[in-house]
Amino acid sequence: MLPFARVTIIGLGLIGSSIARAVQATMPTVRLTGYDASPEVRERVRELGFTDDVTDTAGASVVDADLVIFCVPVGAMGAAAAEIADDLPADAIVSDVGSSKASVLAALAAALPDATIIPAHPVAGTENSGPDAGFATLFKDRWCIVTPPEGADPAAVQKVEAFWQRLGANVDTMDPKHHDLVLAVTSHLPHLIAYTIVGTASDMEGVTQGEVIKYSAGGFRDFTRIAASDPTMWRDVFLSNKDAVLEMLQRFSEDLTALQRAIRWGDGDTLFDLFTRTRAVRRSIIEQGQDDAAPDFGRHH
Amino acid sequence: MLPFARVTIIGLGLIGSSIARAVQATMPTVRLTGYDASPEVRERVRELGFTDDVTDTAGASVVDADLVIFCVPVGAMGAAAAEIADDLPADAIVSDVGSSKASVLAALAAALPDATIIPAHPVAGTENSGPDAGFATLFKDRWCIVTPPEGADPAAVQKVEAFWQRLGANVDTMDPKHHDLVLAVTSHLPHLIAYTIVGTASDMEGVTQGEVIKYSAGGFRDFTRIAASDPTMWRDVFLSNKDAVLEMLQRFSEDLTALQRAIRWGDGDTLFDLFTRTRAVRRSIIEQGQDDAAPDFGRHH
Repeated sequence: MLPFARVTIIGLGLIGSSIARAVQATMPTVRLTGYDASPEVRERVRELGFTDDVTDTAGASVVDADLVIFCVPVGAMGAAAAEIADDLPADAIVSDVGSSKASVLAALAAALPDATIIPAHPVAGTENSGPDAGFATLFKDRWCIVTPPEGADPAAVQKVEAFWQRLGANVDTMDPKHHDLVLAVTSHLPHLIAYTIVGTASDMEGVTQGEVIKYSAGGFRDFTRIAASDPTMWRDVFLSNKDAVLEMLQRFSEDLTALQRAIRWGDGDTLFDLFTRTRAVRRSIIEQGQDDAAPDFGRHH
Repeated sequence: MLPFARVTIIGLGLIGSSIARAVQATMPTVRLTGYDASPEVRERVRELGFTDDVTDTAGASVVDADLVIFCVPVGAMGAAAAEIADDLPADAIVSDVGSSKASVLAALAAALPDATIIPAHPVAGTENSGPDAGFATLFKDRWCIVTPPEGADPAAVQKVEAFWQRLGANVDTMDPKHHDLVLAVTSHLPHLIAYTIVGTASDMEGVTQGEVIKYSAGGFRDFTRIAASDPTMWRDVFLSNKDAVLEMLQRFSEDLTALQRAIRWGDGDTLFDLFTRTRAVRRSIIEQGQDDAAPDFGRHH
């Protein structure tokens, strides 16, 4: 039993194009329609052929959909939803893949007050962007967090969950506010820190940019990967999950200040204790299949 | 022409055991002697067989060496050097692989005032530790920074450089002080930040440890890799390169505060501009062969 027969994906970048490819691979009878605000992206998707159809307006893409998924930056969700308001079938389910959920739910609900909205967030991605970057197995064994609004139709929630399970994901449900707090720790703060440190290293006057790049294998290069993620997407994430991100930043800064003090005063025990504790976290992540056990991320040596 | 015929490695963890394996692979006629302060490690190295000999005292390991390399935590260099002072041949060259150089040079020179000391730092490693973690190709195409003291014998410097080139590394020379500044940016600050963020995420009361691990693929897991590095080694690095690390931390904190302010006031342009700039740094690192181009570090999907 397929949860949906006609799926529309609005926004055909890394995530949207990966969903399309994964639907093709796991539910080949589903009719897939795509739309992207960029004419170049639409043209490229027609060439790549991972949807049955690409329409030139958002409205035309949803006319017979039973699931519409918005895969646009979270700051663009409201405007994208407004574009389909007149054409959305009454029984269609609307979902999205945004990295912050409370603000996206509010934006979608404001633009589509009568629609059944079941937001979701697949916790998966790479640092690459655009329709060429997607692939069918991106969601396999990753978590997808479904964040139904209060009073959501359980049957609709179940269909969205079944859809993500078909794509290979493990599914959890969560309150949108709690999602935003959890992801502020596991995703938003790490991205902000990575962007910051890459910026700091670029702005040194005593050390050249060439030296930073040459000796980046000492640790720095790890941070450059997530600091190469899509700028628009991430700008919107930080602005839309402001409160939780600022709260995490405050905690992080306090912890960093404590370490700074330990270094200044030669307090090796404080450093050693933390560095021992953090090792155990890595072990748990590997044991639970959320990262490879191969040293150095399995980089080729 | 081999630069050295009898090489002694003191400290047989990730780096020491990788040097031994790389010497075996690239200079099989070199006679290799190993010593480690831990009897368990010495026993394990005898089983693994990547040295010709393992001695039970540091002194015995150096009696006929023409190169002695200290591969112990930087805080242990002085004491380890003192142990060989009575047995070191007058014409032997002493080197090390420490991640900070000014303090190590001072410690080695104090313990071995008459020795020829040519410190070096191979910028390579993994998050794993111990004699089982090493491998022969660890240094291939990575940089090794040689930091000769003022007035060092050019012939001795050249021999150490030739040694590292034989192991597959690219070699640079640098003033020890400048090395410590460069590595504070490309290695020490990234490690400290990674340790901090993993600690911060472990200490949340509103978010469980289980949630942090489950959803770590959103970015957090990248940081856990380097936060799984050897606690003793890294405690010593921060304490021994204190001034440069504190200077970098100050700059990083200022930059983070600026981003925090941009988020608080909804200044999307500041965020977008930085996030665009950091993308270019990643591109340069890949172009210069210092990381894989494969998305997500080539993790299996």
